[in-house]
Amino acid sequence: MKYRIEKDTMGEVQVPADKYWGAQTERSRNNFKIGAAGSMPQEIIEGFAYLKKAAAYANYDLGVLPIEKRDAIAAVCDEILEGKLDDQFPLVIWQTGSGTQSNMNVNEVIANRAQVLQGFGIGEGEQFIKANDDVNKSQSSNDTFPTGMHIAAYKMIVETTIPGVEKLHATLVKKATEFKDVVKIGRTHLMDATPLTLGQEISGYAAQLSFGLKALKNTLAHLSEIALGGTAVGTGLNTPKGYDVKVAEYIATFTNHPFVTAENKFEALAAHDAIVETHGALKQLAVALNKIANDVRMLASGPRSGIGEIHIPENEPGSSIMPGKVNPTQCEALTMVCAQVIGNDMAIAVGGMQGHYELNVFKPVMAANFLQSARLLGDACVSFDEHCAQGIEPNYKRIKELVDNSLMLVTALNTKIGYYKAAEIAQTAHKNGTTLKEEAVRLGYVSPEDFDAWVKPEEMV
Amino acid sequence: MKYRIEKDTMGEVQVPADKYWGAQTERSRNNFKIGAAGSMPQEIIEGFAYLKKAAAYANYDLGVLPIEKRDAIAAVCDEILEGKLDDQFPLVIWQTGSGTQSNMNVNEVIANRAQVLQGFGIGEGEQFIKANDDVNKSQSSNDTFPTGMHIAAYKMIVETTIPGVEKLHATLVKKATEFKDVVKIGRTHLMDATPLTLGQEISGYAAQLSFGLKALKNTLAHLSEIALGGTAVGTGLNTPKGYDVKVAEYIATFTNHPFVTAENKFEALAAHDAIVETHGALKQLAVALNKIANDVRMLASGPRSGIGEIHIPENEPGSSIMPGKVNPTQCEALTMVCAQVIGNDMAIAVGGMQGHYELNVFKPVMAANFLQSARLLGDACVSFDEHCAQGIEPNYKRIKELVDNSLMLVTALNTKIGYYKAAEIAQTAHKNGTTLKEEAVRLGYVSPEDFDAWVKPEEMV
Amino acid sequence: MKYRIEKDTMGEVQVPADKYWGAQTERSRNNFKIGAAGSMPQEIIEGFAYLKKAAAYANYDLGVLPIEKRDAIAAVCDEILEGKLDDQFPLVIWQTGSGTQSNMNVNEVIANRAQVLQGFGIGEGEQFIKANDDVNKSQSSNDTFPTGMHIAAYKMIVETTIPGVEKLHATLVKKATEFKDVVKIGRTHLMDATPLTLGQEISGYAAQLSFGLKALKNTLAHLSEIALGGTAVGTGLNTPKGYDVKVAEYIATFTNHPFVTAENKFEALAAHDAIVETHGALKQLAVALNKIANDVRMLASGPRSGIGEIHIPENEPGSSIMPGKVNPTQCEALTMVCAQVIGNDMAIAVGGMQGHYELNVFKPVMAANFLQSARLLGDACVSFDEHCAQGIEPNYKRIKELVDNSLMLVTALNTKIGYYKAAEIAQTAHKNGTTLKEEAVRLGYVSPEDFDAWVKPEEMV
Amino acid sequence: MKYRIEKDTMGEVQVPADKYWGAQTERSRNNFKIGAAGSMPQEIIEGFAYLKKAAAYANYDLGVLPIEKRDAIAAVCDEILEGKLDDQFPLVIWQTGSGTQSNMNVNEVIANRAQVLQGFGIGEGEQFIKANDDVNKSQSSNDTFPTGMHIAAYKMIVETTIPGVEKLHATLVKKATEFKDVVKIGRTHLMDATPLTLGQEISGYAAQLSFGLKALKNTLAHLSEIALGGTAVGTGLNTPKGYDVKVAEYIATFTNHPFVTAENKFEALAAHDAIVETHGALKQLAVALNKIANDVRMLASGPRSGIGEIHIPENEPGSSIMPGKVNPTQCEALTMVCAQVIGNDMAIAVGGMQGHYELNVFKPVMAANFLQSARLLGDACVSFDEHCAQGIEPNYKRIKELVDNSLMLVTALNTKIGYYKAAEIAQTAHKNGTTLKEEAVRLGYVSPEDFDAWVKPEEMV
Repeated sequence: MKYRIEKDTMGEVQVPADKYWGAQTERSRNNFKIGAAGSMPQEIIEGFAYLKKAAAYANYDLGVLPIEKRDAIAAVCDEILEGKLDDQFPLVIWQTGSGTQSNMNVNEVIANRAQVLQGFGIGEGEQFIKANDDVNKSQSSNDTFPTGMHIAAYKMIVETTIPGVEKLHATLVKKATEFKDVVKIGRTHLMDATPLTLGQEISGYAAQLSFGLKALKNTLAHLSEIALGGTAVGTGLNTPKGYDVKVAEYIATFTNHPFVTAENKFEALAAHDAIVETHGALKQLAVALNKIANDVRMLASGPRSGIGEIHIPENEPGSSIMPGKVNPTQCEALTMVCAQVIGNDMAIAVGGMQGHYELNVFKPVMAANFLQSARLLGDACVSFDEHCAQGIEPNYKRIKELVDNSLMLVTALNTKIGYYKAAEIAQTAHKNGTTLKEEAVRLGYVSPEDFDAWVKPEEMV
Repeated sequence: MKYRIEKDTMGEVQVPADKYWGAQTERSRNNFKIGAAGSMPQEIIEGFAYLKKAAAYANYDLGVLPIEKRDAIAAVCDEILEGKLDDQFPLVIWQTGSGTQSNMNVNEVIANRAQVLQGFGIGEGEQFIKANDDVNKSQSSNDTFPTGMHIAAYKMIVETTIPGVEKLHATLVKKATEFKDVVKIGRTHLMDATPLTLGQEISGYAAQLSFGLKALKNTLAHLSEIALGGTAVGTGLNTPKGYDVKVAEYIATFTNHPFVTAENKFEALAAHDAIVETHGALKQLAVALNKIANDVRMLASGPRSGIGEIHIPENEPGSSIMPGKVNPTQCEALTMVCAQVIGNDMAIAVGGMQGHYELNVFKPVMAANFLQSARLLGDACVSFDEHCAQGIEPNYKRIKELVDNSLMLVTALNTKIGYYKAAEIAQTAHKNGTTLKEEAVRLGYVSPEDFDAWVKPEEMV
Repeated sequence: MKYRIEKDTMGEVQVPADKYWGAQTERSRNNFKIGAAGSMPQEIIEGFAYLKKAAAYANYDLGVLPIEKRDAIAAVCDEILEGKLDDQFPLVIWQTGSGTQSNMNVNEVIANRAQVLQGFGIGEGEQFIKANDDVNKSQSSNDTFPTGMHIAAYKMIVETTIPGVEKLHATLVKKATEFKDVVKIGRTHLMDATPLTLGQEISGYAAQLSFGLKALKNTLAHLSEIALGGTAVGTGLNTPKGYDVKVAEYIATFTNHPFVTAENKFEALAAHDAIVETHGALKQLAVALNKIANDVRMLASGPRSGIGEIHIPENEPGSSIMPGKVNPTQCEALTMVCAQVIGNDMAIAVGGMQGHYELNVFKPVMAANFLQSARLLGDACVSFDEHCAQGIEPNYKRIKELVDNSLMLVTALNTKIGYYKAAEIAQTAHKNGTTLKEEAVRLGYVSPEDFDAWVKPEEMV
Repeated sequence: MKYRIEKDTMGEVQVPADKYWGAQTERSRNNFKIGAAGSMPQEIIEGFAYLKKAAAYANYDLGVLPIEKRDAIAAVCDEILEGKLDDQFPLVIWQTGSGTQSNMNVNEVIANRAQVLQGFGIGEGEQFIKANDDVNKSQSSNDTFPTGMHIAAYKMIVETTIPGVEKLHATLVKKATEFKDVVKIGRTHLMDATPLTLGQEISGYAAQLSFGLKALKNTLAHLSEIALGGTAVGTGLNTPKGYDVKVAEYIATFTNHPFVTAENKFEALAAHDAIVETHGALKQLAVALNKIANDVRMLASGPRSGIGEIHIPENEPGSSIMPGKVNPTQCEALTMVCAQVIGNDMAIAVGGMQGHYELNVFKPVMAANFLQSARLLGDACVSFDEHCAQGIEPNYKRIKELVDNSLMLVTALNTKIGYYKAAEIAQTAHKNGTTLKEEAVRLGYVSPEDFDAWVKPEEMV
């Protein structure tokens, strides 16, 4: 491979000749060979592209950057956002915990690419745009990385997670209505209980998602606050007056999301409770979705030796050895995602609680876990919706058979003959393998006519 | 010990003669010898007392319970709330996951105590009030336990957690103002950075708590929804019309908290996402408090070989072997509480995600962990506030010495001479153990006059 | 209440006149009002009693404590172990993270009680035994608390956890043998699969516990290492030569468990990886038991609309509203314990990872979570064993009905006619609601005779 | 893109014409668009390559597969292991929880590639090797995936994790010896304590890793057990006699690791406690490494306003805004890895505890989290070792200055003048800002000569 020489304040570094990155990126590449290369999420890089462009615009407006430099920086940011420079960001999550090296990666790529757009070779000529003095002007890694993280996190939540969950929620609402009159047996403690309708059962799932969405949206105000303008420790050193508000406005404009400058920049650098908070809502959704998906696969279990009250789509052969087997695979993918999200919540807590003084240095690991959770939940809800939930259909025959047989219909007699006699009826029928009616009449507690009038599953829901 | 015979639908049971509880409580006592006796939180029992009284009132209003029974039930509920019957609730957390046995414990105690208040011995005479048919009227364990759980949880949050956190928050806000001009060195990555004021540093802590409180309050609407009226599976079987709304109003009146009936009772029985949601906010507070308490002990570390920028109260001898040692013990208690809360969050997630069909049967473990977290956080914030935060004072001499010495003041030169020359000055001073000014002048980058004019810690904050 | 005045190095403190504790205990009581009083686990106090006695013996043997003082200290330790002084330890978990205050609580109680045993009133006369100089001789909180913690932890594991799990394991092994010929349908993905025997299924549960026990026992060597002799920072300052080995021998003798002195005392004070390690095995057992208990309740579900392949004991009425309902309550208690243990594992990790320099100050929270888990797992296994597992019986009729009906018996044809034709048979039978044999013959792939010869559930296990 | 038609038991599917995979892989690609494509870890695919080859050999030896098929299968397996077919495995973690689709992906690629090696185009001609009947012979996804998972996990632990941790351990042992006489101040509760040597301090870190390695190795026996031979539900249906032992021997031979057949195949399919167990040891290592890395950065903090007792290598410019700043970046990368591992431990527990009946369907998420943790820990230890630990050097001047100043040297006086007088000396010196000696003499408790003879830091270690 061919190399060129790049310099930073510590001296010279050999860099692959055809790459835009510079000395600090290369040092990080060499010093942090931990896990697969390039693991820093792409969404973070895009977050940086937005903020670098916004900073250039704000710096120009406030008189500290000439318009040519603003436009040169912005042009490269646009290229990054278009995905043209995807192979220029080789760094890993497991670098410095402030993400300084990824900030410098972006600064270096913008500076060197701008030079090339001016007609030079990479690294040739007097640098028109300087990585630290121009691209990073009025910035520090300490405020840019959390800003990039919030941009990426907010966008993922709003563009992927919420639409995915809402899509599934809409289907569940629709199914709840559709099956609102399908009376079935209820189950508590996994044991037969009084009846409800399939629609009611599914309405509970929909309510869970509805609460989860509300909880998630409640966190967005905190997440929309960005640290930019705090620079090194939150004081805003080396920024022009008014910069923090203005740069947030540009970010809001460029991303089309309502970002605002953080009211307290010290908190915004030293703590990432906004990430903890929003991910807490993702965890709540994971808890909800695990319950829902597990119920669906239990209800659909069979085909002959399970519960079998609903049908779900048969999407793939389910077994490499058992011919004809079909499995609730979407439930499995979704519950695996839930397990991941619950684990990620702990990784984020462990990172979030260990900030020191003016800086939390668990930023990349928190960002990476957050983005994984937010993406997986959104994607998995869409997948589950399209390949499973939309296709849920009652197995009417099975549902009727089970509810008609149920001993817990006896509960309707409580208010007529009292709990104790009702219990005796149910226990006797259970022991004898008979019906409630048979035993109710035989024990002399209820007449056949009264029984038929009082015990109607469809009126118990 | 003397016993009497009690009966339930399964037959006879020997019960200690002097206790109000009945057959089902005794069965549970014998069948669940897991951990210390009586571990079911007292707050849950109190929640039950509120709801049993409210149910009696609603049942009377709706014509299904005579006024004498209402008043007899209510009288015992009041005794429970006054703490007169504390030794009547011997059951453990680790019982049936619906909490049925604790519901029956309450039902039995109310029924038997009411009998005694009528002038009989315990268990003597025809039962005036029946545990299942009267005390439990229009109820199921499946809607009472989650209702009791929400009452207990909401009260603990509003009466203990929030006031405790707010008390500490108020002190931090006061300290932030008080020390707003105390310029000190900043630290990022635990390394010397640009200055800020001690007030600014503390304002970040206050902001964390402020966000945590907002997050916590955001969850209260969900937590204020109660399941009562759903009975066995959420359909409200065996309740009179209008009961759910009315009983919630009585609970709101009796507790003086804005409880409302849950919009979707199926969700309210089968899932406890409200508990997951609110505890998520407690976990966020734990993450925040861990950071704050850890910073405080690091800033106060010493007395001679640590950071030593602040003084905190000396409350106790700190060592059984090292004479004169004093330790940041309040920080330690608080961070231990944080560890507990973070662990509890996982226990709650694991319980919350495993509901089946119409019922989640991890109610007691979820409730117990929630109540422990909410109480500990509130208490620990008060303790930390009174015995530590209120006494935080700057060590002015040490603060000044450290900030004056700092190499990171060089950052002020970035906008004057550029990042690279500034770096050279700092690196040279570091290597030579000299001051920035000496090297800045020696290298010929800055005149002594300019240096003094440009590098002023108090203008860098 | 009446008080007496006690003194420590910080001055005078009012102490309840009738209590043996002294100034430092009282300071802690007042400074740490966090959660319920007296939450420091009793087992830790007992651990202290063992080690204080052992230290007195070792100190005497090595010539630094007179025999009268040794015996006076030992006499009080024996009283503590007999439970005679249980009300003398009022401190909470949420105190200083080194447990210094509980160490001093023990020191003070021993000193003051010894004085009383000499014939004085509490706090009267010249102290015969001094809390710091005699009871705490050759010790520091920093080595005593972890020693007390290891003694308590080891004893709980060996005396409660392991016997409990082994008891359940033995029952499962017995059931696996007993039901080794009961052919039943297998289920994978919750869907019907090829058959196995009920004994084989249960043998898997037994194997899980067997692995869990092995894993737990693998950790005991680390847990048997005790810190005593390290004193303040691990160097053993202020201990006579040979003390650490000798004191461990005495502890081993007094407890009848193979404790040894820790090879590296710095690790033993600054880290509690032994607690993390052993609790990791408890978490593994919780993971295993959750699976087992969940399977049992699913297999026992019904009575008419569930799986119903096994019967489990009916221990209590299951519902306050549904007459005759019986629930798998032992499964619920056990899975709630599992949720708690999994949460505790995280609390312990969060505490364990945050040691600083020469000391980890999350000792009490780690100890408390550990002891809770170890006790609950042991107790819950016994409860589950006695009230559920021992009573597991097959529902032979149901088992036969389900296995005979299964479409997955078709797998036996793979090696005869290939996977594709076998799949076609199963899919057609599924679609038509017919039997495999009908379709196998109708499709012309297998003769009736071959079918009967090839497809025998009892030969597929 | 060009497509060809592939078939499975559900019908026809369009597959990219140039890919070796078949219908079932393509169905999975389309049905599980969750997260980035191809996320199933490469190591799992390699595990499959080993086991498919081993199965072919065992099948041949036992007379159920002709030698030509064995060799054709083995040839493709070797190509997979050489990395020649890396782009043929596009599936994600978030698929069916048994990993069936990845098993079929491997089966299909082997079958189609074998066909090409016979001289046909992909999908052309009568299939010489059939995916289900030949490649998958004597196998099920249910036993192959856990086998592949154990192969991958074991290899990663033995080839990456253990060597990485051992490398760091060796450096710490070396440093402990090297600095065994460097007397420094100890710190407990972050506060000044009695002295120890830097070598002793580091020996504690080494001991933590040594215990962690022991704990990790203790788990390997369980992890070396493989499920292969259990097929669909653990009974070994459709395998020739002796197959399970033989196939494990081939896997041991091909991988050069001591794999053995699992004693209980039901456990091996339905539970993955071996994964939980080994990852528990990884979590213990993460807890240990978090403590170590955090200590290192605190000890190295400064350069002028921190602890500054050690120097660590300066690897990169640390700040994009603060010139000359250098940060403990390796500590940060390592502690971020620790946070990830602790989170992964929870994801694995959540997956592990939710097996149902004969199968756990959280296999892919468990495998992926395990492999990430094992790799990251190994890599991060190497990185931390090479770029940080090896370069740790004492700052002798600073160390001496701090220890000489320490008030806790007073502890040496306990055994001479008692704890109370010693405390008075320390407290007075603290208050007056004087030295211990000054106050000891002034208070008349110790003569200057005795003080010098009794208080020697170098004799207190």
